[in-house]
Amino acid sequence: MRINKQWRLAARPQGLFKDTDFLWREEEMPPLEDGQVLVRNVYLSLDPTNRVWATQDSYMPVVPIGDVMRGGTIGVVEESRNAAFAPGDVVQGLLGWQLYAISPASALSKLPKGVPLTAFMGLLGHIGLTAYFGLIDIGQPKEGETLVVSAAAGAVGSLVGQIGKIKGCYVVGIAGSDEKCNWLTNELGFDAAVNYRSGSILDALKRTCPKGIDIYFDNVGGEILDAALALINLRARIPLCGMISQYTASGPVAGPANLARLIMCRARIEGFLVTDYLPRAGEAIPQLLGWMQSGKLKFKVDVAQGLESAPRAVNKLFEGTNTGKLVVKISEEP
Amino acid sequence: MRINKQWRLAARPQGLFKDTDFLWREEEMPPLEDGQVLVRNVYLSLDPTNRVWATQDSYMPVVPIGDVMRGGTIGVVEESRNAAFAPGDVVQGLLGWQLYAISPASALSKLPKGVPLTAFMGLLGHIGLTAYFGLIDIGQPKEGETLVVSAAAGAVGSLVGQIGKIKGCYVVGIAGSDEKCNWLTNELGFDAAVNYRSGSILDALKRTCPKGIDIYFDNVGGEILDAALALINLRARIPLCGMISQYTASGPVAGPANLARLIMCRARIEGFLVTDYLPRAGEAIPQLLGWMQSGKLKFKVDVAQGLESAPRAVNKLFEGTNTGKLVVKISEEP
Repeated sequence: MRINKQWRLAARPQGLFKDTDFLWREEEMPPLEDGQVLVRNVYLSLDPTNRVWATQDSYMPVVPIGDVMRGGTIGVVEESRNAAFAPGDVVQGLLGWQLYAISPASALSKLPKGVPLTAFMGLLGHIGLTAYFGLIDIGQPKEGETLVVSAAAGAVGSLVGQIGKIKGCYVVGIAGSDEKCNWLTNELGFDAAVNYRSGSILDALKRTCPKGIDIYFDNVGGEILDAALALINLRARIPLCGMISQYTASGPVAGPANLARLIMCRARIEGFLVTDYLPRAGEAIPQLLGWMQSGKLKFKVDVAQGLESAPRAVNKLFEGTNTGKLVVKISEEP
Repeated sequence: MRINKQWRLAARPQGLFKDTDFLWREEEMPPLEDGQVLVRNVYLSLDPTNRVWATQDSYMPVVPIGDVMRGGTIGVVEESRNAAFAPGDVVQGLLGWQLYAISPASALSKLPKGVPLTAFMGLLGHIGLTAYFGLIDIGQPKEGETLVVSAAAGAVGSLVGQIGKIKGCYVVGIAGSDEKCNWLTNELGFDAAVNYRSGSILDALKRTCPKGIDIYFDNVGGEILDAALALINLRARIPLCGMISQYTASGPVAGPANLARLIMCRARIEGFLVTDYLPRAGEAIPQLLGWMQSGKLKFKVDVAQGLESAPRAVNKLFEGTNTGKLVVKISEEP
């Protein structure tokens, strides 16, 4: 008999997530039906988009109050009544903030062996694809161009900067602490890094981007987007990946004052979602894997221990206190 | 002996242009030198970009204080010491806010006969090219899509909407009076028009765009851009042609709060300048001329009488009181 543990969504969050926005439930798992698979979750992915899912209909419907909170997971099959899966298989899915999940086979994908599991939450998962296609497809980097990336010590940003270096760009990262900035320049090979919490971001970008900005990969929106717009070059591209500075705002947030720069510079802001690129994952994964194996692409995983920690851990994304991909370890790896 | 009349720029404008921002000068014209051409200006084009030229370096250098105010003109050659031009030729150039100008031949282009002169300030000039390439190249209209255009009774906007109809779009115009709105729907064939001065622009767009917005051709920025962003569809395109609501602002203006919609809708805001498309004018002019001659494309010219009127007339653009292309008639047509 298996007792499930779950975080259910109890309220629509205002600002940061609060403990009272979730409800802890423990309950017995029902028996499997034909065609179903029972998965024990091992890792839960925490992402800025979780805040969107909890609040509003977007590219996916809002999570109903009372439902298990939505979340990407990696787990191990413990029981299967589907020929496609056997106990011990390692699978990825959107199985939610819970220890066990019963899933139709169609909602699971089997993971290959020989690669650290957490890589599939970062480099080889939606994070890697976001960084790859956002930069390559929307940003269109050319050798010698200046690439600036915000939330650069985050899961996506740290990969964007490294892929930019592989493509021959001069890369400047923006992050929220000197420690993160040192990691970017010393470990990941960024050309420069700017701590947005110390002094004027505009001045810092002017200093570190003497040739202006050709690509600004935006994860945050707000004031940093405005500063970047002030410095864009002709034909600049701004892939809009996220606006984390605004997800926890309680009211409307003023947009960038410098939008008219887009006209003067014939420049472009373009939003994208990784979901659109999933059919093209085959273009990216072999390259990402190759770069990882040759040491050109590093990634860091920030692991919170235990499903219980999820509601507080997720706020690290909005407070800017995580480095690399934030995950929760729910149970032991097989 | 010719006495020139000129408006020189006397101060950097704050807000609307004031009379004291210009200085009226009358002075004798110097004799022509070899290679030069003397032009009597007939029409002066007034455009929102005049406010930018007077204030800041942009895609062109700022007009120096004390210089003749920059402006596009059509005129007639009165004297020529250049073999390429003869008295009586009608020419177009950037000859400024003055009655006479001495120009090198290289800065003039000769206009063909048989078309109303003012058409070269609108439909067949930079206005027509702006509308054509902004909509076709950046907006990429497809049959059945919903196109919304702001400043729709202005020179560019009125053409954009009509070209949108030619391309099979459902077209909604935004303008600042019921009279303008009636002109758009009754005379120009727009499917609907919204007076942004009567009630909520968001509600009005919701009502007139039941299928959402696929293309928002933006001439104004500000609140209307925000409302349009709230209603964009997947893969929407927003050609950014101008931000007239901001040109006369004295300080920074908050940008759109709804910018994150670009992510959810995988949509794009892209600035452009007609100057980049001048080499491709040959693609557009024959079509524009054909549509004009077959009655599919109408344009209106709003004529202010006399060079003296220019400093006050130009403010009609920012007050929204012109309809169609705003020009000043400086002297008689040949």
